[in-house]
Amino acid sequence: MHQTVNIPMLQARRIKLAQLLETPVLLWSGDRPARNFPANHYPFRASSHFLYLAGLPLENAVIHLHQGRLTLFWDEPPPSAALWHGAQPNRETIATMIGADAAYPLSELMPGESPDDRPILQPSKWTDNAATIGLVSEMRSEQCYVLDRSVNSPNQPDELDCQLTQALISLRLCHDTAALAEMRHAIAVTVQAHQAGMQATPRAKTEAEVRSAMEQVILAANMTTAYNSIVTVYGEVLHNEHYHHPLQSQDLLLADVGAETQNGWAADVTRTWAVQGKFSSTQRDLYQIVLAAHDVAIAALKPGVEYRDIHLLACLTLAEGLVDLGILQGNPQDLCDRDAHSLFFPHGIGHLLGLDVHDMEDLGDLAGYAAGRQRSDRFGLGYLRLDRPLQTGMVVTIEPGFYQVPAILQDAQRRENYKDCVNWERLRQFSDVRGIRIEDDILITEMGLEVLTRALPTEVDAIEQLCQVG
Amino acid sequence: MHQTVNIPMLQARRIKLAQLLETPVLLWSGDRPARNFPANHYPFRASSHFLYLAGLPLENAVIHLHQGRLTLFWDEPPPSAALWHGAQPNRETIATMIGADAAYPLSELMPGESPDDRPILQPSKWTDNAATIGLVSEMRSEQCYVLDRSVNSPNQPDELDCQLTQALISLRLCHDTAALAEMRHAIAVTVQAHQAGMQATPRAKTEAEVRSAMEQVILAANMTTAYNSIVTVYGEVLHNEHYHHPLQSQDLLLADVGAETQNGWAADVTRTWAVQGKFSSTQRDLYQIVLAAHDVAIAALKPGVEYRDIHLLACLTLAEGLVDLGILQGNPQDLCDRDAHSLFFPHGIGHLLGLDVHDMEDLGDLAGYAAGRQRSDRFGLGYLRLDRPLQTGMVVTIEPGFYQVPAILQDAQRRENYKDCVNWERLRQFSDVRGIRIEDDILITEMGLEVLTRALPTEVDAIEQLCQVG
Repeated sequence: MHQTVNIPMLQARRIKLAQLLETPVLLWSGDRPARNFPANHYPFRASSHFLYLAGLPLENAVIHLHQGRLTLFWDEPPPSAALWHGAQPNRETIATMIGADAAYPLSELMPGESPDDRPILQPSKWTDNAATIGLVSEMRSEQCYVLDRSVNSPNQPDELDCQLTQALISLRLCHDTAALAEMRHAIAVTVQAHQAGMQATPRAKTEAEVRSAMEQVILAANMTTAYNSIVTVYGEVLHNEHYHHPLQSQDLLLADVGAETQNGWAADVTRTWAVQGKFSSTQRDLYQIVLAAHDVAIAALKPGVEYRDIHLLACLTLAEGLVDLGILQGNPQDLCDRDAHSLFFPHGIGHLLGLDVHDMEDLGDLAGYAAGRQRSDRFGLGYLRLDRPLQTGMVVTIEPGFYQVPAILQDAQRRENYKDCVNWERLRQFSDVRGIRIEDDILITEMGLEVLTRALPTEVDAIEQLCQVG
Repeated sequence: MHQTVNIPMLQARRIKLAQLLETPVLLWSGDRPARNFPANHYPFRASSHFLYLAGLPLENAVIHLHQGRLTLFWDEPPPSAALWHGAQPNRETIATMIGADAAYPLSELMPGESPDDRPILQPSKWTDNAATIGLVSEMRSEQCYVLDRSVNSPNQPDELDCQLTQALISLRLCHDTAALAEMRHAIAVTVQAHQAGMQATPRAKTEAEVRSAMEQVILAANMTTAYNSIVTVYGEVLHNEHYHHPLQSQDLLLADVGAETQNGWAADVTRTWAVQGKFSSTQRDLYQIVLAAHDVAIAALKPGVEYRDIHLLACLTLAEGLVDLGILQGNPQDLCDRDAHSLFFPHGIGHLLGLDVHDMEDLGDLAGYAAGRQRSDRFGLGYLRLDRPLQTGMVVTIEPGFYQVPAILQDAQRRENYKDCVNWERLRQFSDVRGIRIEDDILITEMGLEVLTRALPTEVDAIEQLCQVG
């Protein structure tokens, strides 16, 4: 536990929560799942809701929050653990670090009995009437046991937990300065990682080598990746987690890589560059269209604007560009109304960013979608992860793309539906573009916006220059 | 699924299993646990027992084995998955890749019903009387459901599963040429990673930077780490997974880092080097003692030898060296009989290596300990993970160490017990050594042994030279 913690900011979060919620709250941090055997576990990642209010990734901890008071429940490791894991701070030290008002062993939550014996617990003053958020791991059964009631998966909270869920959403939607400091730190390292990737590419033979150059920067900063990196010459596979392909001289390489700080705050950045350092003219033409959509979308961000409208604006800009290039044909607005642009840009323009790379996606669409709204059935809107008016303090990604996805473009039904919209012969001239995405992280400010990732260029010339440094 | 698979070798394993076991077998591969939200999962690691017999890390797959025949149960991803994950090989292709005799969707295992409805299943010809190995994840409840019976954690198999457990142990204890080829590959990359770590150290400011240089090599080879890396100047913390400490000029750095191939085979290597490249005379003196124990232990390996005796031999060599240095006092054999060496070497001399870094440790001590044997209560033997006579084809680690563990050396009871054994004043002169470990991977051969990790030197001079290349 060598992380620094901003106690006044944590206390402010706890007080704000108390203002939104009268009932007491119990939040679990979770534990480490086993990989191939119990002692060989995956790296621990605490629940984001716990991190938001406790501030430290404490394993197997529970916090009780009521009226701004925080009580920590955590078992000190047995003395024998010191041999394997070193001397650990004791409970009192941890409590001081996170600004807890009191601290107890876990047995205090479950009075009189060891949790291993699994008796029917008496409700304690800590568990009685307490709201919680279900973990996304098997530890949810532990929550049910301690609370002696059902605890649903967090995207379908039980009645008692709905108000807490909404309170946490309203807090976590807009970031305080401590959160922003963490995210700026994650972003600074992520920018360096992308620069390292560009520089490593000319000498790299495989996707894996470029990925290794990027993640090396993140590991050197003692951070982890916020999500499984995408580093691929098959950028049309949106969540491609394979890295074995050789780099061919005419390929574009798409890298979607973001760091996560030790306290769990994420960055999420995508750049696309040419394996040989120089874009072909067709690659440059399509890249400029994606970049135009990216720039237009970012310029339109400000408090009060509907994120869905930002998405639609980016789609229109993309459609206009594709019409100009002769790939789409017709009136751009009409094409968008028919979702023809989605043939090449099938996902949403972005999402919330915070402690989770898709922030609060454990809650399904409860955070991403304003009350009463739900996902559209439309081809061009179904994958939109955020549909809310923007507020000061939100951080969102803007990440338009152009992809030639065989599963879409070879689909007989879609080809039929859009046969008048696409000039397939013209499209064939762009066969050296499989996938392009440009993704930045943007803070909504009172004045409009701040591109947190601005240190990493998006223009073709600047990217080509970075590749040539290598 | 771009991995290569040695089908004849897999079929030979399946036939050997059938020779040991009449009952049918169902083995699950498992799935990916969620990290902070369901779509942001940890990287998939298939169950090692599944990998041993199926050969490919197929997610959410089940194999049925009977009389050498393999039947695969696996659901092809829905067409919509192609957008996110690319075109996947179909079931028939996968079946051909792994040499399956037949392949069905998972519903064939659970006839007539969708698994989500959770009806009481009819025993099918596939599940009836089938033995299995419990997974170490929450998916064990899925196994119980399909088999309609209890499935214990794998270290306490149900009666029906005991024979399968023993059969798998006897197969997996001794490696075939396909397994050895995989392990040699993992080891070759691991050797490069350690060389990179040594070379990066003179310019590194933190443990994290050295770790990043090492894991970069593993990622570039499109492998993963077989376990959470230990890269630390606090080597006395045996499973230290922190990387934030600055490197101080007088420190030793201990790196226990191993690669794992895409098909799951592990390497496990430790080296200790000086942050400044040059060992101090006290560091060199203690390193030579650990190296002597390492060399003596390896030289004694051959089929038929008891691994416990190798452990005791290493302990004796260590004790002799510490007596020569004046840190321990008394007769070395007597000191060992009293476990005095364990004050400085509290763990076992090594373990099995294979698909798991502690091979088959999901089975508790069932694989590591010969039938009828169990862990000793003795301070000097309690952490020994392997107590069997060695056999041709086994791969074991040999990893003696010297540590100054505060939790041991400051313990009043231990200081009292061993007050006549330790020259505490002499020990103080070695305060620039907190932890040293030297770990190699060794194949037991008919002729004796082969040090698989021999490409990475262990001698002080050679290690100092590697550090100076950086």
